[in-house]
Amino acid sequence: MEFNFEELNAEEIVEQIHSLFEAKKYSQLKEILVEINPTDTAVILEEFPNEQKIILFRLLPKEEAAEVFVELDNDVQEQLIASFSDTELKEVIDELYLDDTVDIIEEMPATIVKRILRNTDSETRASINTLLKYPEDSAGSIMTPEFVDLKKDNTVEDAFKRIRRTGVDKETIYTCYVTDKSRHLIGVTTVKELLLHEYDDKIEDFMETNTIYVNTHDDKEVAAQLFDKYNFLALPVVDMENRLVGIITVDDAIDVLQEENTEDIHKMNAMVRTSEKPYLKIGVFETWKSRVPWLMLLMVGATFTGMIITAFEDKLSALIILTSFIPMLMDTGGNSGGQASVTIIRALSLNEVDFKDIFKVLWKEIRVGIVCGLSLAAVNFVKILVVDKWLLGTEGITLTVNLVISLTLFIEVIFAKMVGCTLPIIAKKMRLDPAVMSSPFITTIVDAISLLVYFGLSSAILHI
Amino acid sequence: MEFNFEELNAEEIVEQIHSLFEAKKYSQLKEILVEINPTDTAVILEEFPNEQKIILFRLLPKEEAAEVFVELDNDVQEQLIASFSDTELKEVIDELYLDDTVDIIEEMPATIVKRILRNTDSETRASINTLLKYPEDSAGSIMTPEFVDLKKDNTVEDAFKRIRRTGVDKETIYTCYVTDKSRHLIGVTTVKELLLHEYDDKIEDFMETNTIYVNTHDDKEVAAQLFDKYNFLALPVVDMENRLVGIITVDDAIDVLQEENTEDIHKMNAMVRTSEKPYLKIGVFETWKSRVPWLMLLMVGATFTGMIITAFEDKLSALIILTSFIPMLMDTGGNSGGQASVTIIRALSLNEVDFKDIFKVLWKEIRVGIVCGLSLAAVNFVKILVVDKWLLGTEGITLTVNLVISLTLFIEVIFAKMVGCTLPIIAKKMRLDPAVMSSPFITTIVDAISLLVYFGLSSAILHI
Repeated sequence: MEFNFEELNAEEIVEQIHSLFEAKKYSQLKEILVEINPTDTAVILEEFPNEQKIILFRLLPKEEAAEVFVELDNDVQEQLIASFSDTELKEVIDELYLDDTVDIIEEMPATIVKRILRNTDSETRASINTLLKYPEDSAGSIMTPEFVDLKKDNTVEDAFKRIRRTGVDKETIYTCYVTDKSRHLIGVTTVKELLLHEYDDKIEDFMETNTIYVNTHDDKEVAAQLFDKYNFLALPVVDMENRLVGIITVDDAIDVLQEENTEDIHKMNAMVRTSEKPYLKIGVFETWKSRVPWLMLLMVGATFTGMIITAFEDKLSALIILTSFIPMLMDTGGNSGGQASVTIIRALSLNEVDFKDIFKVLWKEIRVGIVCGLSLAAVNFVKILVVDKWLLGTEGITLTVNLVISLTLFIEVIFAKMVGCTLPIIAKKMRLDPAVMSSPFITTIVDAISLLVYFGLSSAILHI
Repeated sequence: MEFNFEELNAEEIVEQIHSLFEAKKYSQLKEILVEINPTDTAVILEEFPNEQKIILFRLLPKEEAAEVFVELDNDVQEQLIASFSDTELKEVIDELYLDDTVDIIEEMPATIVKRILRNTDSETRASINTLLKYPEDSAGSIMTPEFVDLKKDNTVEDAFKRIRRTGVDKETIYTCYVTDKSRHLIGVTTVKELLLHEYDDKIEDFMETNTIYVNTHDDKEVAAQLFDKYNFLALPVVDMENRLVGIITVDDAIDVLQEENTEDIHKMNAMVRTSEKPYLKIGVFETWKSRVPWLMLLMVGATFTGMIITAFEDKLSALIILTSFIPMLMDTGGNSGGQASVTIIRALSLNEVDFKDIFKVLWKEIRVGIVCGLSLAAVNFVKILVVDKWLLGTEGITLTVNLVISLTLFIEVIFAKMVGCTLPIIAKKMRLDPAVMSSPFITTIVDAISLLVYFGLSSAILHI
């Protein structure tokens, strides 16, 4: 039976499965399910009520079942495990890659974890326990201990024999690691190299000896970035004694990169990332917890801008028109600073910029600030004349008032760019997360600077 | 000679190469260069003056030279090509993967492009010209036409023979594509599958027939996201007649994902992305061009908030203390809206949220807005009492003024969350980029709403 997922949308498939289910046409159902990519099967499965989910899941062949299981949401995994017999549980766990088992265990309640561990052999259990001990953000926590290891005096033929014998259980076989007797990593080769060499060639004669690796305790983000930089398919992970203990595969590296990007984007916008769950699965209270701390801090921080305005209250009541332009000045300053900070934060996280570049960056941002400030001030000057004065006939706008506003704009944009570009670099130097030094935080600082410039210029030029 | 890049930093290596260069110890130099990963060699090479760069580059073995060449900056590539003889140029181009050649050609001036094309054989030239025609953001523009293709009646042995014969020039050999006589894609298998089957097994008996693919004209971001979703190493690309014309490899997909993330982050902060170059390589004028349009637009957009303030001028001069809290109210509103919009934009780009979820999202954000608004208003009420009134002794703060401010806060936060979460979803539905509907834009809208609520409540409660 031909079946193309691309041509049908998920809803149609769910409907089709539904009707086959009702008609109890299980063998036909099985045929369809097998044809669908496990990732999609997982999405489809979640559309069905609990008991039906379990029946559908049982229709899947062993290997496919494990692949689907990994892609399911944690709560569905929990439901399924609860309905599994011990034999069924063991079958699924046996098919899983170890790093996936560990990921699942980390999200399960203690009773289920115990059941999972009880249904694994002692060797696997030991590996799981080791993996569970690595800190959450470490390279160790995302590696798998299942890789192809070779000896340097192996021939190409030996290597292929070994891969054929043990490869089925490995997440990747394409990068093979050469270790010595004490399990130190001494080289790397690939199946491509193996295929392009003669059967009796020795591994040590063509293996790559200058291997890039990470330590189990290195940050997983650092590890993931190496994939981006060097185009790896897998990266070896060594322990404190430099013994090869696992590998990270490119699919997990992509997940880390995407997750770190999400985290950065959230941090840049005054949010704490409390959960890696998708948006719709995060509860209201949890969302509140991730959003309210920074809102609170920034709100209280705005006391300073309030104090500045209070201090200049007399001037404002003398020339109330000045108040009308406070929002525009604040927003433009905030946006200008935000642009600079976000650009630098991203450049820092892509390793395009370093602390040693701080003056280069500052000098560039000052010049960008000058041209941005000049163009904005010029447009603003004309806009106030044409729109506010002539078209809207706003009272109190004189040439000098216009001058004060436009001059403030020019100066604040330069300040905003300077503050915006330096704070993230300094934060990184102080081992803080630069992503926090972005728009919302910069805005609060730039607001204060802008108001001071505004009132300072008002006093000087307008003599109020 | 043992040489570990991890243990030395780039500066030390540059120095070491420098001194070997001075001493004209070229064979030792060559040994070092070969040991370094091409990506790092490229970085090191850029530290040397032009003539030395060329000499160093010529020391590299052919294959390594091509790998380094790809990683160099465009201007360095241009310099090198200018210094190459036609034979040298041909050697480098021959070693490059076709998609990399096309990437390079796209960045070179016409004279160099002509020289490159003159030094390739007619078949390659035809492929290059085809690839150059795909739109910039299309899947076709990042694919390579060099892949392993098999026939369905091939045996495993045939497949390995073919890979051994042609694999050296392919970017990846691990995913093999099965095509029929008219080059339609009919199945996929992997080297892992091949290795785990017997030599006389036929490909058609175990190949995967339900293949996920993209069209040459599909968006490259859509293609890249499939790698994230399905954990592919390569993805087939078909033309309008459904013929297999190329593949996208995972390393290029990672580049696209990272590039799209950068673009999103820039757009979210009111910047147009005009260049994919790293921060320090982008000139002041180009940076200005990417930043000033949105600043200008948002600045002019702030005319509305100015108008609102002007309209309520009398009330403000009657109770000047109200002015002091405008910055705090505006920032908190902007930050609250920004949080919601950024969360939704990210969820949209990760496909966690869809247009059909709009009411689910809105209902969640309203509830989040209520709890955030309540907590902020409560803290603010106490803060104004304790800090502004008692500690700072700010004049004019009464219980009703405090009530107006805190109530405004409560209401504006709910509005901000509602506006922030719906605009990106609507933008996507209208085929606009949701990333534009983020903090800066939302802030401008929320500013106006906040001021209207503020002045409305002031009139109603304070009777001014």
